[in-house]
Amino acid sequence: MRNLHAKILVLGGGFGGLSFCRHFSHPGAEITVVDRTNHHLFQPLLYQVAMAGLSAPDIAQPIRSILAHKPGLTVIMDEAVAVDLPARQVNCHKNTFPFDYLVLALGGVTSYFGHPEWETFAPGLKTIDDALRIRRNVLLAFEQAETEVDPRRLSSLMTIVVIGGGPTGVELAGACAELAHRVLCKDFDHIDPSRARIILIEASDRILSHLPPDLSDSARAQLEGLGVLVRIKSPVRSITHGRIELASGEVIEAENILWAAGIMAHPLTRKLGVETDRVGRLKVLPDLSLPGYPQVFAIGDMVSLQQENGKPVPGVAPAAMQMARHVARLISDDLDLGRGRSPRPPFRYVDKGTLATIGRSKGVALFGKIKLHGYLAWIGWLLIHLLFLIGFRNRVSVLVSWTYSYLTYRLGARLITGMPAPDPGNPSAKPGS
Amino acid sequence: MRNLHAKILVLGGGFGGLSFCRHFSHPGAEITVVDRTNHHLFQPLLYQVAMAGLSAPDIAQPIRSILAHKPGLTVIMDEAVAVDLPARQVNCHKNTFPFDYLVLALGGVTSYFGHPEWETFAPGLKTIDDALRIRRNVLLAFEQAETEVDPRRLSSLMTIVVIGGGPTGVELAGACAELAHRVLCKDFDHIDPSRARIILIEASDRILSHLPPDLSDSARAQLEGLGVLVRIKSPVRSITHGRIELASGEVIEAENILWAAGIMAHPLTRKLGVETDRVGRLKVLPDLSLPGYPQVFAIGDMVSLQQENGKPVPGVAPAAMQMARHVARLISDDLDLGRGRSPRPPFRYVDKGTLATIGRSKGVALFGKIKLHGYLAWIGWLLIHLLFLIGFRNRVSVLVSWTYSYLTYRLGARLITGMPAPDPGNPSAKPGS
Repeated sequence: MRNLHAKILVLGGGFGGLSFCRHFSHPGAEITVVDRTNHHLFQPLLYQVAMAGLSAPDIAQPIRSILAHKPGLTVIMDEAVAVDLPARQVNCHKNTFPFDYLVLALGGVTSYFGHPEWETFAPGLKTIDDALRIRRNVLLAFEQAETEVDPRRLSSLMTIVVIGGGPTGVELAGACAELAHRVLCKDFDHIDPSRARIILIEASDRILSHLPPDLSDSARAQLEGLGVLVRIKSPVRSITHGRIELASGEVIEAENILWAAGIMAHPLTRKLGVETDRVGRLKVLPDLSLPGYPQVFAIGDMVSLQQENGKPVPGVAPAAMQMARHVARLISDDLDLGRGRSPRPPFRYVDKGTLATIGRSKGVALFGKIKLHGYLAWIGWLLIHLLFLIGFRNRVSVLVSWTYSYLTYRLGARLITGMPAPDPGNPSAKPGS
Repeated sequence: MRNLHAKILVLGGGFGGLSFCRHFSHPGAEITVVDRTNHHLFQPLLYQVAMAGLSAPDIAQPIRSILAHKPGLTVIMDEAVAVDLPARQVNCHKNTFPFDYLVLALGGVTSYFGHPEWETFAPGLKTIDDALRIRRNVLLAFEQAETEVDPRRLSSLMTIVVIGGGPTGVELAGACAELAHRVLCKDFDHIDPSRARIILIEASDRILSHLPPDLSDSARAQLEGLGVLVRIKSPVRSITHGRIELASGEVIEAENILWAAGIMAHPLTRKLGVETDRVGRLKVLPDLSLPGYPQVFAIGDMVSLQQENGKPVPGVAPAAMQMARHVARLISDDLDLGRGRSPRPPFRYVDKGTLATIGRSKGVALFGKIKLHGYLAWIGWLLIHLLFLIGFRNRVSVLVSWTYSYLTYRLGARLITGMPAPDPGNPSAKPGS
C-alpha cells in the first residue's frame, strides 16, 4: 500500500454518497462525509410528505445513524463553499478538509430555466423543508376557502397547478387530486374540495416523455380518471403571485403553483473550472473521474455521461448507486495497486426498470420490454420503495401510514406547522389555542 | 325549545374544546369551533417530539378530521382577538362570530414571570413548532460540538439546562438524558455525548411538588440514575444567550436552555373585563360560567376554581375534559328547559390519578392512595397515554415508534428541519446536498 492513511472526502449524503460509504472499505483509508443537513432523504417519496401522506421522519434518517457502525468514518454537518482541486482541499462554512480522493455527490437543485424570480411563486420540491412548506400552503388554502365569499378568490384558493409532466410532477398531481378529491372532501362544510381543480402543465407533447408513448397515454388517462386536468403543449410564459400565463396567452389563477419542471446540478459544479453541460452537470471521463484529476470523482445527478449506446445515464437513484459502487472499486484498486488499474474500466449503467405512481392503486412501469399499467405497476412501486427505504423504523412506519390511508382514505400527516411568527404587538397571537 | 338555532361558539380545539364537542349534542344548536391551528395537539407527549422520540403527526390530528362526523358543526381556522361579552360577539383575525353560548377553551401559554425577554434565550414548549425548534437546536449543538476545538464552547454546546421541576421539566430532562446518553452516544467520533451535562433547575425545595414528598424523592433518584443533575432551591436570577445566572450568583453556560417553569392563561382572558387570578386565569362561578354572563363558560387551563375541599382544580387534561362535559350538560339543559335548571349544579372534579414519566421504564404515579415507582408507573403511563391518543393511526404509529426505540435505543425522528433560509448571495447555499 502506497498510502497508509488516504483521506477520502465525500460531499453529499444522498443515494450516491451513502452507497459509496457502504461499498468502500479499505484498511488504509479514512472517510469523511460532509452534508448540509443531518439526514439522508428518501427523495422519491418526498411528494408524499408534501401531500400529507407521510410524516417527515418517515422518509429521512440521520446520516450518522445510518453509518454509525462503519469504522474509520466521520460524518460532519457542514456545507461546501469552494473546492480547490489542484491543492486538494475543500472549504466549507465551518471547516476546511484536505483530501487524497474526492467524491462529489451533491445532487441537483431546482432549476427555473433562467427565471429565478419564479421560485417565490412556484416552489420546487427538493428538501424536507420544501415539502413541509408546500403541505402548509396547500392545506391553508382550503382552510381559507372555507370562509371565503369572493367567488374569484375562492376559485383561486381551490386550484392547484403543477408545472412539469415528469415523474415528480405526475406523482405530485396524482397525490394532490387524491388529497383534495378523496380526503379533504369529507371534512369541510362550506366548500366542496372534490370540486378543486388540479391542473398538470407540460410544455412538450406528452407527459413522462422518458417512457414509451403508450405508457405516457396510460399515465394521462389514469391521471384524468383521478380528476387531474392534463394540459400538454403548454409552455409557461410567466409566473407571478397566484397567476400563471401560458405561451398561448391563457391565464390561470391558482393560490398554489408547484414547480416540478426542472433540475440542474448543484451550483458548486460551475466553480470547479471543469467543463459542464447546460444544466451544470460535470462532463466526467468514462471512469467518472474529472478530466485532469484522476483522484476526483463525481456521481449521481451532478454527472453528464453518455452511455455506449449514445443515451445519457438518467438522473435516478439507481444510477447514482451504481456509480458509487464503481468509484468505490476504483479507489480501492488505486490504494491496493499504487496507481490503480490502467486503463481504468469505464462505468456501465444497468437499467433495471422505471416506475411512476399516480395516486392510490395507479401507476405505470417499464422493466426491459415489460410494460405495466394501473394496479400492478402500483404494487411493484410500493414493494420496491419499501425495500429501498433505509432503516427499519421508517419501513414499518411507512407501511402503517400507507395501509391506514389505503383503508380509510384519510391521510395521517395533515398538519399545518411552521406558520410565520405571530405579530409581537398582538398578545393574543401567542400560541395556546 | 326556546331557541331553535342556538349558536354555540367554542374557542380552542384542545382537550377541553374537543371534549365539549364530543359530549354536546342538541338538535336545536349549531356549533362553531375556532382554533388558531388546524390540529388538535396531544400536549402530554410534546416533549417526545422535542426530544426526537416521536414525529409531529404522531401526536397531532386535524380538528376537522376528528369532528368530521358530527352534524351541525363547523371548524374554522382563525384566531380570536377580541370578545365583546355584552354584544355576544367574538372578533377573529378574519371573521366575526355572534354567539348565544360561548365556551372559552384556549388553554395556557408559557409564562416567564415578568421576564418576557427570557423567551428568546429559553424557549418554552407549548406548540408543535416549539417542539421542532427545540429538537433542531439540541441536535445542532451536538453536530457543532463534533468539530469544536475551544473547550469552553464545547462544554456549553454539550450542556442542556431545563428550568422548572414540574411534570414537563422532569419529563423533558429525562428525555434529554436518554437522547444524549443512550442514543447519540453511538453516532459521534470526536465527542462523547454520554458526557453531556443535563441540568434540571428547580426554585423550590423539591421537584414534582404536586405529588407527595416520597414520590418527589423517588423521581429525583430516578432522574439522577439517568445522569441528570438535579438542582433544587435554585431560583433563576437572569437568562441571556447561552448563560444562566442563579440567585446564588452561580453561572451556568449552556447552548440549550429550555423553559418549563411557568404557565399562564391565554392572554385573551385579561381583556374580558372579568376578574382573573395572578396568572390570568378566569375566576368562574361554581357552574363554570363567568360572573354576570350565564351563557359564557370557561374550561381547562384558563380557569381558576377552588374545589369544596379548598384545593384548586389542577390544570391537567382530565380536568379540562370533565369541565367540558359539565358545560355540555348545562347548555343542553338550558336549551331544553328554556332557562335551564336553577340553580345550576356546581362542577366537581374527580381526581383519577397523576402520572409522570422519567425516560425509558421509569416514572412515578399516584392513584388515590396507591403510589407507583419505576417500571410499573411507566407501564401505567404508557397504557393511559396510548388509550387517550386521539385517532387510530397515531396510536399505531406511536406504538411502533416506542417499541422501536425501546428495543434499539435509537430514536426515530432525529431530523433537523426548518433551518434559516440560505443566504441568497451564496449560490452554493442552495439545497441539494
